Amino acid sequence: MSIENTIAEFKKYTDKFVALNMACGMFSWDMATGAPKGGNRARAVIMSVLAGEAFSLSISDEMKGYIDELEAHASELDEITSVMLKYCKKAYHSYRSIPVAEFMAYSELTSNSQNIWEEAKENNDFSFFKETLDKIIKYGIKFIGYRGYKVHPYNCLLDDYEEGLTVEQLDVFFSKMKQTIVPLLKRIQTEGKKPDTSFTTRYVSKEKQQKISELLLRKVGFDYNRGMLKESAHPFTMNFTRDDVRITTHYRENMFLSSFFSVLHEYGHSLYEQSKRDDIAGTMLDSGVSMGIHESQSRFFENIIGRSLEFWQNIYDELMEILGDDFRDITPEMFCSAVNVAEPSLIRTEADELTYSLHIMIRYEIEKMLISGEYNIDELPVLWNKKYEEYLGITPGSDAEGILQDVHWSGGMIGYFPSYSLGNAYAAQIYSFMQKDLDVLGLVRKGDFGPIKDWLKEKIHQYGSLKTPDEIITAISGEKLNADYYVKYLEDKYTKVYGLN
Amino acid sequence: MSIENTIAEFKKYTDKFVALNMACGMFSWDMATGAPKGGNRARAVIMSVLAGEAFSLSISDEMKGYIDELEAHASELDEITSVMLKYCKKAYHSYRSIPVAEFMAYSELTSNSQNIWEEAKENNDFSFFKETLDKIIKYGIKFIGYRGYKVHPYNCLLDDYEEGLTVEQLDVFFSKMKQTIVPLLKRIQTEGKKPDTSFTTRYVSKEKQQKISELLLRKVGFDYNRGMLKESAHPFTMNFTRDDVRITTHYRENMFLSSFFSVLHEYGHSLYEQSKRDDIAGTMLDSGVSMGIHESQSRFFENIIGRSLEFWQNIYDELMEILGDDFRDITPEMFCSAVNVAEPSLIRTEADELTYSLHIMIRYEIEKMLISGEYNIDELPVLWNKKYEEYLGITPGSDAEGILQDVHWSGGMIGYFPSYSLGNAYAAQIYSFMQKDLDVLGLVRKGDFGPIKDWLKEKIHQYGSLKTPDEIITAISGEKLNADYYVKYLEDKYTKVYGLN
Repeated sequence: MSIENTIAEFKKYTDKFVALNMACGMFSWDMATGAPKGGNRARAVIMSVLAGEAFSLSISDEMKGYIDELEAHASELDEITSVMLKYCKKAYHSYRSIPVAEFMAYSELTSNSQNIWEEAKENNDFSFFKETLDKIIKYGIKFIGYRGYKVHPYNCLLDDYEEGLTVEQLDVFFSKMKQTIVPLLKRIQTEGKKPDTSFTTRYVSKEKQQKISELLLRKVGFDYNRGMLKESAHPFTMNFTRDDVRITTHYRENMFLSSFFSVLHEYGHSLYEQSKRDDIAGTMLDSGVSMGIHESQSRFFENIIGRSLEFWQNIYDELMEILGDDFRDITPEMFCSAVNVAEPSLIRTEADELTYSLHIMIRYEIEKMLISGEYNIDELPVLWNKKYEEYLGITPGSDAEGILQDVHWSGGMIGYFPSYSLGNAYAAQIYSFMQKDLDVLGLVRKGDFGPIKDWLKEKIHQYGSLKTPDEIITAISGEKLNADYYVKYLEDKYTKVYGLN
Repeated sequence: MSIENTIAEFKKYTDKFVALNMACGMFSWDMATGAPKGGNRARAVIMSVLAGEAFSLSISDEMKGYIDELEAHASELDEITSVMLKYCKKAYHSYRSIPVAEFMAYSELTSNSQNIWEEAKENNDFSFFKETLDKIIKYGIKFIGYRGYKVHPYNCLLDDYEEGLTVEQLDVFFSKMKQTIVPLLKRIQTEGKKPDTSFTTRYVSKEKQQKISELLLRKVGFDYNRGMLKESAHPFTMNFTRDDVRITTHYRENMFLSSFFSVLHEYGHSLYEQSKRDDIAGTMLDSGVSMGIHESQSRFFENIIGRSLEFWQNIYDELMEILGDDFRDITPEMFCSAVNVAEPSLIRTEADELTYSLHIMIRYEIEKMLISGEYNIDELPVLWNKKYEEYLGITPGSDAEGILQDVHWSGGMIGYFPSYSLGNAYAAQIYSFMQKDLDVLGLVRKGDFGPIKDWLKEKIHQYGSLKTPDEIITAISGEKLNADYYVKYLEDKYTKVYGLN
């Protein structure tokens, strides 16, 4: 076969696991947005069969044949084929030693476990979830055993979400974070002038919040023709193809800012996914390159734009039309101060920018222990609570606001949390260089998001998974990820918000 | 390998195409209930890949191996395995001569064509759809060429929806229908006393109609834990597994009965799917056996129950609470008479029970021509209109209410329409024997649907695809499908409604 034919056949072959992964995604989307509960068990079996098929394709002899043949002609490959080959090779070597039956059993387990976790959280009872979680962790450990790792077993999982990321790097990263955040938080608490946040818990009906979601998405220009907004228990973004990217939010009537920032956060994810180049749309490169870069985009819209005074000034009049007299006493400045308050809290997703990394650090440290096998499942809630006491000075009053708060582990996503912190750091680094080209906050004040979106598309979004995180951030800033930008961003911001000097 | 192992491996293999078919179904459901339009094209590609995979599995050498091995041990197989083998063998022999690439191209075509048809219908312009339709028909003809047929090429397609059904049988069936319906319709029009239907077009808000849907489903006892009701352009039922069966309806504010009867119709389908035996749930037999039997269940709830005086008497008070003063002048008797009016009309889905079969006859005759290749695509609208003039005495004023009214052809479903008429006939035959065991309308009057549902489950629903239509109807009535029951049902009903003697 000519190399052109091999490439064409290889691409057709990868279309199959793209389609199978999409199908799993479609079932997940369906489950999260209202599928009948009675079908959960059968649906989990179907998803495990589909995931098993995709898995089998990635480690088949046919795949091995394509890899060998394409590698032999490496110099003749176009960029897209080369990168696809890289991912296929990585998956092949990573997964080929896991028995398909075990992978499918694991996949069925994680499909079912989301409902178990939900019920445990609703009933505020970790004991209902602990056996399932224990099984998930043990599968994680077992699979790492099959897959192999360098230095620390947790590195194997970190690499799944952020290529090349290691415990060594993260230890340095978090230690730098800790050195900045802990004293800054202390200064804020002792010397700072705490903004008034009392009005943020005023009642806002779900209907009004839905209108606020529409306002926000209209402002930033969400493409409804290629996406939609729905409700789910836990906000998320689901990208099927570049032309079908869906986001969700949830509404809490005494916490309208929760949905407000979720919508902006998920919008950031969706913009990344909707802005890819034509020639990678529909291929296996048609998704963001890493969780870290992805989170940089969501956090950019949520925090850097969404918590700026300029944004609140821009939306104020229209927002007031929705919020009505109940908020007539609140100025844009008051909103902006309130959404930038920093204080220890229990729930990660509601945490402020400053303390957020401490929440991640806790999960990072616990996950390292879990994956090393150094844990006692019954003692996890206590361990969790102790770490909150240690880093944040507060203790969860229940499992629901402690160990059970996050969905990730129920889906088998261990090693994912650190990417949230990387995302914040990437966002600060990107923002620093965007400001050299654009008057970012001036544009936000005018509601002119076009130039910002174009800039992101040119530097990041268009590539999907074509460029590595390192390539992207180096092209933008001339260096790899550097936490100093984020540290400086936090120091500048909170010095200002709290009137420190 | 022992035969037990072969059976186990064979079942695992069939799980794969069950899962792939479910995945295609999930994408269809998603598209029909609000997926972003911009993703349609990419979604069609994904669906074609999934359908192609399922298709490949059904004609693979591995499948051939299972068929040969299981046939060699036919006497040792349990009933479920035997029936699964029968279907796999039929599919294998039917499809193995179709090239996979052509099947996938066809699948992509029919995924895309639904949107094209929708647009053509919205714009009332057949020319927008005709090229696509022409391609679909030509694929149909081509595939029949690959697959082979007996006597008439259309038989090949009829058999897809109703095993063993032939043109010869249908010609007899429809000729009997025609001989009854045409003179009866004439008598009604000349001698009958036409019920007042003027109030059926009174405005009923969508919100009220949604409440009516809930009332109806509560009355008959829809299992929301294993199903849901949503909106779509065209009402339909989608069964994933026994424990996840979904129905849709549409709301027209000046035609509230349209949704009323759609809900009952789709409920009948859903009850069939939700009532299968434990041991076939999740297998490839976990769906109704044929379109004819399926339609018998939907038409039973829509017409035999839903248009009975007893049903209207039962729901009257609760219905009135929703409809309010606007309908205070209408008695249950007036409702019942109005919903049993018979007169020539243009739209099949809104047609009454008497003239319904004439609508089907027209489609049957046209499809026979299409599949024989005896058609001119440009002249189809005229041909359609002529037949309406001939059989019903009225002529569509536009493509939208003529040739473009049905979704079926856009999905490649040629040969499906006759099953609607078979469904009506099966329903009358089943009803005739159900009455020997139960005081059906007495139960309906009391709103006690349990015994009726139990009867249907025992005789029909539990089997899924395990028993053939012939086996089912013979076990109930001691004979095969016999149109006489239906003819008698129509004569009795309309003589009464129109006060003939």
